[in-house]
Amino acid sequence: MTDRTGRPLCVLISDFPLADPYVGVMKGVVLSRVPDAVLVDLAHGLPPGNVAWAALQLREQASYFPPGAVFLAVVDPGVGTARRVLAAESGPYRFVGPDNGLLHPVLAGQASGTPPRIVAVDVEAVRIERRSETFHGRDVMAPAAARLLAGAPLETLGSRMDDPVELRLPAGRREGGSWVGEVLASDGYGNLVTSLEGSVLAGGDWRIRLEGRDLGPVRATFGSVASGEATALVGSLGRIEIAVRDGSARERLDATPGMRVEARLAP
Amino acid sequence: MTDRTGRPLCVLISDFPLADPYVGVMKGVVLSRVPDAVLVDLAHGLPPGNVAWAALQLREQASYFPPGAVFLAVVDPGVGTARRVLAAESGPYRFVGPDNGLLHPVLAGQASGTPPRIVAVDVEAVRIERRSETFHGRDVMAPAAARLLAGAPLETLGSRMDDPVELRLPAGRREGGSWVGEVLASDGYGNLVTSLEGSVLAGGDWRIRLEGRDLGPVRATFGSVASGEATALVGSLGRIEIAVRDGSARERLDATPGMRVEARLAP
Amino acid sequence: MTDRTGRPLCVLISDFPLADPYVGVMKGVVLSRVPDAVLVDLAHGLPPGNVAWAALQLREQASYFPPGAVFLAVVDPGVGTARRVLAAESGPYRFVGPDNGLLHPVLAGQASGTPPRIVAVDVEAVRIERRSETFHGRDVMAPAAARLLAGAPLETLGSRMDDPVELRLPAGRREGGSWVGEVLASDGYGNLVTSLEGSVLAGGDWRIRLEGRDLGPVRATFGSVASGEATALVGSLGRIEIAVRDGSARERLDATPGMRVEARLAP
Repeated sequence: MTDRTGRPLCVLISDFPLADPYVGVMKGVVLSRVPDAVLVDLAHGLPPGNVAWAALQLREQASYFPPGAVFLAVVDPGVGTARRVLAAESGPYRFVGPDNGLLHPVLAGQASGTPPRIVAVDVEAVRIERRSETFHGRDVMAPAAARLLAGAPLETLGSRMDDPVELRLPAGRREGGSWVGEVLASDGYGNLVTSLEGSVLAGGDWRIRLEGRDLGPVRATFGSVASGEATALVGSLGRIEIAVRDGSARERLDATPGMRVEARLAP
Repeated sequence: MTDRTGRPLCVLISDFPLADPYVGVMKGVVLSRVPDAVLVDLAHGLPPGNVAWAALQLREQASYFPPGAVFLAVVDPGVGTARRVLAAESGPYRFVGPDNGLLHPVLAGQASGTPPRIVAVDVEAVRIERRSETFHGRDVMAPAAARLLAGAPLETLGSRMDDPVELRLPAGRREGGSWVGEVLASDGYGNLVTSLEGSVLAGGDWRIRLEGRDLGPVRATFGSVASGEATALVGSLGRIEIAVRDGSARERLDATPGMRVEARLAP
Repeated sequence: MTDRTGRPLCVLISDFPLADPYVGVMKGVVLSRVPDAVLVDLAHGLPPGNVAWAALQLREQASYFPPGAVFLAVVDPGVGTARRVLAAESGPYRFVGPDNGLLHPVLAGQASGTPPRIVAVDVEAVRIERRSETFHGRDVMAPAAARLLAGAPLETLGSRMDDPVELRLPAGRREGGSWVGEVLASDGYGNLVTSLEGSVLAGGDWRIRLEGRDLGPVRATFGSVASGEATALVGSLGRIEIAVRDGSARERLDATPGMRVEARLAP
């Protein structure tokens, strides 16, 4: 499957550190097998080993890419253990990644009528000749993605399966009249992304608290707060984010993942 | 307009943090609309919200790219406020970005005979269906750039205007026989880029002072100073830079933006 | 020479800082001359001025890329001095970079039957019109790579030479029954890459010591150690690496380049 120009599109996401050659060499493996592949980086340097954060990004961002895209997703702290490698097709997209939950939210979240098809990749059949036990992104997942990019049907990569490791992304929960969630992570600006979805706060005058500290109402933009002031808003992922205008909420509020976030209706 | 191979070329520059998916998802939006687009990163992870620094880079670097390139420039601390979004054409290039001064120097600096054409983008007409108030790079500017890449005339994106927010890049000034300027920023090596243009120091034996500290003459290269020694030279932007050989001038000289830099003719 | 699709492939590796426009503008120079070039990043932001580390990466990673690739390698602390600029062809690849040892290991390491051909680039003939003395990556090496990508024979770039600056990558040495080497660098995860090649430790029960501290046997993967525990394994470069599961060995072991690493056969 290719994009409308016939160019096979490979979208990469990983926790590989930004100044290392790990992503680059995966691209070399793909291009060696699919010379006309187009390679696009969704994100790298994600928090090391944080499968849930990468899984959230993959689920939320995939649908901005054109139909036919193959996502090569590598956040793989269990590399070298018995964990399986998956290839999957869901809606207009295909995915390759470790079976550690990374692909589960995007596969479960595709709003297509048909359920995803998943195979456990036959690692020995797919892997490159030179190989290591510590870099399956290069040795197994990149060549698996290359096969899909070259037009191989999903089922030629391995055996159908239907029990991928599941990962439930944190979501807000009701506590009385409140919605309660947590800080998931911060972005590079220091904005705090929370587990509270903006949609549940529609229709009402909600105020946000971080570990009990009142941050005022959910605002539409930074524009209405002063420089250096903290506020809550619905971020680009559709979730409540806590930000400091012209600054870092992570530093200013000394925030860490897991901190309690609460939305209360103003009286 | 496309490059000589007929491939539409999109050059991206932003302050989006390097380990976040913001740049990647903008690329997805462009590719979803223009499947044969070629995407090239000029720079990301620029100092957050520092419009002047990004504007300087855009002005100085644009002309190294091929005619026909569309620049998608996003340093947008005012996102969600009433600030306009601009699309512009100047010489062989087109540009999309927020109306906060970011595009002003490159538009003013194009040495073409004809003045730039600028439109205020009709945000509601251009924006994607799913949208946020906090990420106009993805929701408005990327689809606007995609329209230009797909061949839409500039004027189809909005209404002509001629009053973009202006931004005057700091330049050196005469004080008696000296030229006086300031540290603008440091690069990732720790080299200090100043507002003094190398061309004004031609023909003479100039010595550089940083906050009164003599750094010796302007040298051609690092080659003539010892490891660990500070020196001034004309950098790749054509401006006076202060560098420490095999080290970081920012750390070694404890330098910060705004520090006074003075060039004096040696007696 | 081009890849199998006829697209000229340029692979870039450098120590240019990740948030600066240096890499981006080199790409602009290449695309201005070779509009159909495909640009792929092997790695950037490598340790500044560390020629040996970049040379190791280039040697180990090049062969993962398709035949015909042109590598543009810029770790160039001697820019502006009399050091030469090289272009070379070895096996199915071509290379452009400074003559400071950066290209030597990959040229020496190519397992092709014929020795590499090397030219000293005629800088004045190749360089762009606008130029600086501090950024030969943009002004000299990018246009030299562009010429190769456009099909120019190697010898048209300068004069044949056979005395490039040599660089011997550190390797392990025997000391009695042990192999002794050193920490070369750490990657972004904090894993320590050493000069000991995994192949010399085949067939035996080797234990690793870092500055005399016993880290236990060489293991196949992280899987068999507890979270937070240090271990040694054969990394993706085929060398002994020291890693801490779910953590940074660099921080946990307070490790720096040059530290002594020893492999002893278990009794």
